Amino acid sequence: MIEDHRAPAVTHMVWYKIGAADETAPHSGIAHFLEHLMFQGTHSLAPGEFSATVEALGGNDNAFTSWDYTAYFQRVAADRLDVMMRMEADRMRGLNLTEEDVATERQVILEERSQRTDSDPGSLMGEQMRAAQFLNHPYGRPIIGWRQEMEQLSRQDALDFYKANYAPNNATVVVAGDVTPEEVKALAEEFYGPLAPSENVTRKARPQEPPQLAERLMMTDDRVSQPSLSRSYLAPERDPGNQRQAAALTILAEYLGGNPTTALMARKMQFEDPVAVYTGAAYDGTSVDDTTFGLYAVPLPGKSLADVEAALDKVLADFLAQGIDADDFARIKTQIRAADIYARDSSRGLAQTYGESLTVGLSIQDVQDWPDILQSITPDEVMAAAQSVLDRKASVTTWLSQTEEAAQ
Amino acid sequence: MIEDHRAPAVTHMVWYKIGAADETAPHSGIAHFLEHLMFQGTHSLAPGEFSATVEALGGNDNAFTSWDYTAYFQRVAADRLDVMMRMEADRMRGLNLTEEDVATERQVILEERSQRTDSDPGSLMGEQMRAAQFLNHPYGRPIIGWRQEMEQLSRQDALDFYKANYAPNNATVVVAGDVTPEEVKALAEEFYGPLAPSENVTRKARPQEPPQLAERLMMTDDRVSQPSLSRSYLAPERDPGNQRQAAALTILAEYLGGNPTTALMARKMQFEDPVAVYTGAAYDGTSVDDTTFGLYAVPLPGKSLADVEAALDKVLADFLAQGIDADDFARIKTQIRAADIYARDSSRGLAQTYGESLTVGLSIQDVQDWPDILQSITPDEVMAAAQSVLDRKASVTTWLSQTEEAAQ
Repeated sequence: MIEDHRAPAVTHMVWYKIGAADETAPHSGIAHFLEHLMFQGTHSLAPGEFSATVEALGGNDNAFTSWDYTAYFQRVAADRLDVMMRMEADRMRGLNLTEEDVATERQVILEERSQRTDSDPGSLMGEQMRAAQFLNHPYGRPIIGWRQEMEQLSRQDALDFYKANYAPNNATVVVAGDVTPEEVKALAEEFYGPLAPSENVTRKARPQEPPQLAERLMMTDDRVSQPSLSRSYLAPERDPGNQRQAAALTILAEYLGGNPTTALMARKMQFEDPVAVYTGAAYDGTSVDDTTFGLYAVPLPGKSLADVEAALDKVLADFLAQGIDADDFARIKTQIRAADIYARDSSRGLAQTYGESLTVGLSIQDVQDWPDILQSITPDEVMAAAQSVLDRKASVTTWLSQTEEAAQ
Repeated sequence: MIEDHRAPAVTHMVWYKIGAADETAPHSGIAHFLEHLMFQGTHSLAPGEFSATVEALGGNDNAFTSWDYTAYFQRVAADRLDVMMRMEADRMRGLNLTEEDVATERQVILEERSQRTDSDPGSLMGEQMRAAQFLNHPYGRPIIGWRQEMEQLSRQDALDFYKANYAPNNATVVVAGDVTPEEVKALAEEFYGPLAPSENVTRKARPQEPPQLAERLMMTDDRVSQPSLSRSYLAPERDPGNQRQAAALTILAEYLGGNPTTALMARKMQFEDPVAVYTGAAYDGTSVDDTTFGLYAVPLPGKSLADVEAALDKVLADFLAQGIDADDFARIKTQIRAADIYARDSSRGLAQTYGESLTVGLSIQDVQDWPDILQSITPDEVMAAAQSVLDRKASVTTWLSQTEEAAQ
């Protein structure tokens, strides 16, 4: 519960500790499909009535699925939190699916896949890249699902997944806004309290990665507007009570490619000896299992992906040899502190942060410690993390080229 | 039943329609582990007594696990078939495992992995290559298992897999040798007849591949005695009643790299313009799901893997442009016919062929039709199969280099 009385509104979120990486084969996409189906009817609500009710109250609602969680949220006037809890509690236990609703919604997710993935060469390559990055772990699977498996997802698959995973003892409720803890507790007891827990709903251990022994290069050409180079490395995630390496990687990503003009990759590859028009690095350690550390670059017109990769490799090699610049390091620490302070200003953002973190197994203490841990990281820790993670044997590099036709 | 009265011996095989590709995550290696554990005791036999009995009868026995099957065989004097059937029927239903036996045998399979895989860079790379070839299908999993999952395999995992999959209605018995069909039928009815079938033991559909959109290149160096280049392409398997494309691929593999001195790759890459000391192609369509078509080459001393790959790509491009040489095609047909006739001479080999084929879903008719289908394949069918399968987007290419240290 995050109290915030600046506006008479409340954000209500229910986070289930279940996501695409918890699906069993060959049902990829079922976690996301079920997220859609949760807006169909229950024994008390007609299909679509949930969102219509939120809208009628002047609020908005949505839901999202990741590899590690499925979450539902609404933002409404603070005095309507009771209605949200009543409806979320209702669909936590009372989902009612007809074959027809399932068939219709299956068309919706297939269309979503067509639009967001199948018609976007960059997105398709990202999907193939993840599948090549993870040799055994289900993080290699697309959240939306492989099309041929999505086509087979049935009402029974959805109900089985729902019954096995949706339960009050597998969910976290996060409320942020213009209410008091006492009010929230009373409402939660009224609406969620009566729901009986389920047995065996804790997250099962997923298949883990074997040692990765050989870098993978993937090359394709397509009608893309921009050619690009992507590289991802297998990287550790934040662990409860043990977040320093992930914090060091968070700083490393900022240092290498956080800021589009001042980060190391931008300075070296866009300005000093230009081969790229855009560079970036990405790392998010908030996950259940080992995740990825990503680098990205778009070549300057006239420069090849080979030029870009050679420049990137030189930036990394020089960085590993020469270490961190003290001024840049201090600047990044300041940026991170500022970003954290801005983030605290959004109760909805904080709700998201707590909800996600608790759902992947971190504690409230871990979340509260995180800003100080980031500030306490030393250059040596960043270099040690870089030496450990920037291991080509555990990496995938993708060259997404333009077809000759598209380049003309 | 394959009658063969040339020697007073009999081969007895039991093939279970269960293999490594039917394992559920994260239990890779359980099919193979169970194969080992089947030589532990039953309620009637002490641990090791099975093989000791075979040996005391002057016979030999063994077992093997693939992605699609687990099979047990013995070769003994023909008048001891009854003993083999009694013991196989016994362990089909009566396996008895102690925690201690399981712990000991787990050490055995881990040691087997150490010896055959972990200490062999080529084998390790083959494993990583398969994992990169299959983005979703469990053929990407090593039969022996990923080490970290093998270490966790428990007695209960083995018993669960055994109970779910070992049953008379999920097995094929093949007998070859100096017995009559009537004798075999009577013995089978006596020993296997009383075993009650299990419910739900038919093979479940496995996760299938999504479209593969980008070739993968994998590079590593290690202390190998020989550097090598491997490429595998996703390829269709033999389907019941529909074996022509697989037959064309079988001929294609022979044409490209079957014979170490006369095949196309050998002629072009070892003799006309030498870059390699060894070349080969491999395809075996006897599987449940899509499999691989493989090419392999070892560079001449002084030639790089890049030289070898360039030469290989030229061989393939010229082949696809120019088509098949009629004399070579005729020669290969003759070789295949001869190999088939030789194979018919071995009743044990025939038992293997029928056992494997029936276990992956082919019929006796499919097996009997196969030699004639191979002979009836036209050059056009081979070229069509080559055009379809030699698609770099569905391929993985591996460069296994020598470390500088090892090369000295």
